[in-house]
Amino acid sequence: MHWMSRNVLPEEGVELHRLVSELHPICRSITGDGVRESLRQLQREVPLELHEVPTGTRVFDWEVPREWNIRDAFIKDSQGRRVVDFRQSSLHVVSYSVPVHRRMKRTELLPHLHTLPDRPDWIPYRTSYYEETWGFCLTHRQLEAMPDGEYEVCIDSTLAAGHLTYGELTLPGETENEVLISSHCCHPALCNDNLSGMVIGAALARHLSETPRRRYSYRFLWLPGTIGPITWLAQHEDMLPRIRHGLVLTCVGDPGRFTYKRSRRGDAEIDRAVKHVLGGSGHDCEIQDFTPQGYDERQYCSPGINLPVGCFMRTPNGRYPEYHTSADDLTLVTPEALTGTLRQLLRVVAVLEGNHRFLNLNPKGEPQLGRRGLYRLMGGTTGERHEEALLWVLNFSDGTHSLLDIAERSQLRFEVIEHAALALIRSGLLRAIEP
Amino acid sequence: MHWMSRNVLPEEGVELHRLVSELHPICRSITGDGVRESLRQLQREVPLELHEVPTGTRVFDWEVPREWNIRDAFIKDSQGRRVVDFRQSSLHVVSYSVPVHRRMKRTELLPHLHTLPDRPDWIPYRTSYYEETWGFCLTHRQLEAMPDGEYEVCIDSTLAAGHLTYGELTLPGETENEVLISSHCCHPALCNDNLSGMVIGAALARHLSETPRRRYSYRFLWLPGTIGPITWLAQHEDMLPRIRHGLVLTCVGDPGRFTYKRSRRGDAEIDRAVKHVLGGSGHDCEIQDFTPQGYDERQYCSPGINLPVGCFMRTPNGRYPEYHTSADDLTLVTPEALTGTLRQLLRVVAVLEGNHRFLNLNPKGEPQLGRRGLYRLMGGTTGERHEEALLWVLNFSDGTHSLLDIAERSQLRFEVIEHAALALIRSGLLRAIEP
Amino acid sequence: MHWMSRNVLPEEGVELHRLVSELHPICRSITGDGVRESLRQLQREVPLELHEVPTGTRVFDWEVPREWNIRDAFIKDSQGRRVVDFRQSSLHVVSYSVPVHRRMKRTELLPHLHTLPDRPDWIPYRTSYYEETWGFCLTHRQLEAMPDGEYEVCIDSTLAAGHLTYGELTLPGETENEVLISSHCCHPALCNDNLSGMVIGAALARHLSETPRRRYSYRFLWLPGTIGPITWLAQHEDMLPRIRHGLVLTCVGDPGRFTYKRSRRGDAEIDRAVKHVLGGSGHDCEIQDFTPQGYDERQYCSPGINLPVGCFMRTPNGRYPEYHTSADDLTLVTPEALTGTLRQLLRVVAVLEGNHRFLNLNPKGEPQLGRRGLYRLMGGTTGERHEEALLWVLNFSDGTHSLLDIAERSQLRFEVIEHAALALIRSGLLRAIEP
Repeated sequence: MHWMSRNVLPEEGVELHRLVSELHPICRSITGDGVRESLRQLQREVPLELHEVPTGTRVFDWEVPREWNIRDAFIKDSQGRRVVDFRQSSLHVVSYSVPVHRRMKRTELLPHLHTLPDRPDWIPYRTSYYEETWGFCLTHRQLEAMPDGEYEVCIDSTLAAGHLTYGELTLPGETENEVLISSHCCHPALCNDNLSGMVIGAALARHLSETPRRRYSYRFLWLPGTIGPITWLAQHEDMLPRIRHGLVLTCVGDPGRFTYKRSRRGDAEIDRAVKHVLGGSGHDCEIQDFTPQGYDERQYCSPGINLPVGCFMRTPNGRYPEYHTSADDLTLVTPEALTGTLRQLLRVVAVLEGNHRFLNLNPKGEPQLGRRGLYRLMGGTTGERHEEALLWVLNFSDGTHSLLDIAERSQLRFEVIEHAALALIRSGLLRAIEP
Repeated sequence: MHWMSRNVLPEEGVELHRLVSELHPICRSITGDGVRESLRQLQREVPLELHEVPTGTRVFDWEVPREWNIRDAFIKDSQGRRVVDFRQSSLHVVSYSVPVHRRMKRTELLPHLHTLPDRPDWIPYRTSYYEETWGFCLTHRQLEAMPDGEYEVCIDSTLAAGHLTYGELTLPGETENEVLISSHCCHPALCNDNLSGMVIGAALARHLSETPRRRYSYRFLWLPGTIGPITWLAQHEDMLPRIRHGLVLTCVGDPGRFTYKRSRRGDAEIDRAVKHVLGGSGHDCEIQDFTPQGYDERQYCSPGINLPVGCFMRTPNGRYPEYHTSADDLTLVTPEALTGTLRQLLRVVAVLEGNHRFLNLNPKGEPQLGRRGLYRLMGGTTGERHEEALLWVLNFSDGTHSLLDIAERSQLRFEVIEHAALALIRSGLLRAIEP
Repeated sequence: MHWMSRNVLPEEGVELHRLVSELHPICRSITGDGVRESLRQLQREVPLELHEVPTGTRVFDWEVPREWNIRDAFIKDSQGRRVVDFRQSSLHVVSYSVPVHRRMKRTELLPHLHTLPDRPDWIPYRTSYYEETWGFCLTHRQLEAMPDGEYEVCIDSTLAAGHLTYGELTLPGETENEVLISSHCCHPALCNDNLSGMVIGAALARHLSETPRRRYSYRFLWLPGTIGPITWLAQHEDMLPRIRHGLVLTCVGDPGRFTYKRSRRGDAEIDRAVKHVLGGSGHDCEIQDFTPQGYDERQYCSPGINLPVGCFMRTPNGRYPEYHTSADDLTLVTPEALTGTLRQLLRVVAVLEGNHRFLNLNPKGEPQLGRRGLYRLMGGTTGERHEEALLWVLNFSDGTHSLLDIAERSQLRFEVIEHAALALIRSGLLRAIEP
């Protein structure tokens, strides 16, 4: 019953950061070869499976879009020099741009160019999934260096029937009750959003796969934002009742404080478990109520689905200046932050795994702890804190309170409460309530 | 379904202030010709009906008192000069004073005189409805100017079988469910308490009568305090179940911040609607819990009646120095304040009229807003606030949340939420839940 | 129905302090003649009965221990001088020490000696009820004055089959519903913990016995900590359903602010009554949530018992430096503090006795208070506070609210609300709901 994973060593953060750096150059979008290649790289870490859903497949209110692939893109000046070059950054092309190849005047080109005047060295990130258009993203300095005149514009992309690709890994547990861990894999060269979530998902899966027993089954998903979870949910409706807890992982690689956005239910066990872990972690943290903006929790928490899925982040989307720009790079994400995130998530898993209800088998008066060796034998001292957890577990193990309930009420750490429960079980004073 | 009234123009405040000034000189009390004349003046604004209930009519624990009328009253000094003169202010006579006409020494007269020593230029307001006595109210300076000696005292009043008069106006709506708007009309020359409530009630009725469709029926009452609502309630018990929301209007003409006193229920829809409107109005406001002191909400919220009726005020009774004195005059009440009050009340009505429950017809995952033209098509920008309302309405239109619930939870204005709902209805994504 | 006790005079505090000083020298423990003698001294105040439960009696998870008695104990130095002498303080011997009589070197003796190095003039209090060992407690200065060398050590105690002794007093009331007042009587020369609780329990019993009518029956218990209430509960399980309210009294003689620890239920009537009384007492006070540490509320609030029993204190255990040392003496406890505690407890009793539900017999609109002489007759003044209580009682006497509910909601004192209720009953406007 007592779930423990191996420790997270600092080297693991270094390795995860290396993985981020390998994924960084690949041009991902919501479909296409960039997603496939990224997921195959992750397969070297964990044995996830790639799933392919054909273009045109009806998924709830949506349908799977055409697959987008891109070979090259550039803007050449009158001397034929590439002033904007896709080979330097996949962010230079508006994601899902239709193919284009022609010469045009600067004024004609301008409506297709996106820059950040306030951040003249950063390339913005733009998409146009559901409107047929094209565009380039570039630094404002690049734009300012482009004189009037004629330019050759080329986006060598294809939009054609194909597939939506997602990755999935399931780790069976003692029950079919599932914990869902989801991260979006559709963003191109953005490290915190969301290469960080992708690699932390993989690392968590590896840790879990290495623990001998799991109360829950675990399902890991790496899928394109919005259309990904909609597709998965539409094709797995019969399995949704199994999902007892879930987390969306995103923006988990920066050194900012932890942020947790509650599930739509607001008081789900996952909401309370994360709050307990982060609140007792010694770090500053922020717990937010659910809103229908954000990441894929929007889909998992749509009213007809309403799963207990929250969103686990460090600095949330839109709250750091590098968000959705080329500055969300390998310097924003740090090995130490990745290590720290993984440690907190493993503690959340430990709460979920260990959060049982117990019954005090001697509920009338306190049991005599002394003769069972559970109690200091010399009375009258004031240093009784080490027995607090025993007394809390005994007093509130009345069949209605879980260990997390008791940890919350006592303001003791879950681990301390759980260890007390284990000691009481060994002494025959407590038994688990099935199931 | 979308209720909207015409705008409130500044001229309307000027007109309402003029109406207050016309009503000011009339000597009102809980019964008598002053009430009748006041209500007839209001009839020039809205087609209210006068109702007459005979003296002696049993109404719950009370009976309708004798009708009080007064022609003249004065205190004359030894030279025959009127040192206190009812013709100068109806406040000079204790309301419901029995007739008296005799000569008496100052010392004998003193117990019948009421002044405000701290406010030597103001006349206090006093009543004696249920004890047979008489008295004069005067400024403390007047009293100090009265030398010892003999005075002629005259109150030419009658207390005789007659009627209690109240005004009533009903505006039928699409359903028999009613909104009750009540204001007391028994006070003499006091402008904020409650000529302001009387004229705002009339103005609100006129606005409502000019809107083509109303979900609710509206019932406006102008009645003497305490005995008025007791009489009306006793004679309309069978209609009480129709009343879904209600407001008592009083002290609504001064420029102070808005104050709302919740109904006895505390969480009635009217309580939440007013809080939402005032909280989002940009003005400072105060929301008070119900107490059994105050105005006619005491009767509407008595335990055997318990209607969802709150009290809408600006500066509450007893919280401004001019309260219940002659200084509650035409300078305390301003056209701008009357206009502002009317605007807030119309916004409250708009919330009540528009507060429906809807059902998201695509509850699994988000519907694709883009192809319905409800969504900006270029993704990746951070300026998504204009879509927030659509997402909130979709996510919480699960059959249990009303638009007001969603406005509260999202901290968006009701109007914004309602507009989003209308757009979603037009797109076929939402339908109202009957009824 | 209206319960009132006689006033608590300052002399009563002096008398209670004298009683504490008489009990102070007696060597109490969880069993033995010291407890018997202490309870017999209390019998001179109130007619409590002594109960004896034989050693070995099974009580829930425990059994009644052997009885401990002690005649003498000392440590003599090489000159035969008593350097530690039980006759000077019963704290010098670890409670429940097994007999010992031998000569030993200082180094051999040291593990059996307990001091407070930080408080070199104070003797600590130590017990060893459930491990067979022995020891001495002494001031650190005494220890420092003991040179190396040989000492004669003697504890002339017996541990033998005998009895556990407790005191009980019941005062029958109009119903069998009981209020339980419990104080532990097992500590030796510690005044605040808990001679204060013992004598306050007796004083409260005497006051209650002198009131002609009591709605509740009252049961007072003086028993050794932990094993005492476990023994009593195990032998009176059938009577537990009668107990409607209860208090553990401890540390109630120091001049610190009042502290109340809620019952495990947290919102029991006793919890609300004490909070109301202390909150309105004009003194600073602290209300704590239940924890499973503390005094005998641990047993009364064990999950299989779960009685509505809170713990009434002034400065709680462990929060004053003198706690569990010889400095918890006759100077820490004051006559004034004892008087103040007794007064607050009598006010708590008054709330419990008077906290009925009533029904407004004129629930539609307000009843006409004026013609019943309940109301000032001259209206229009602002000094209406004296009628507030009448209106609160009328408005909320709908069958669901008790007088304490109304006092809490109105923020008026219970006494004021109760007096209003009595006036309304006399006027025929209110009747009690049975029961």
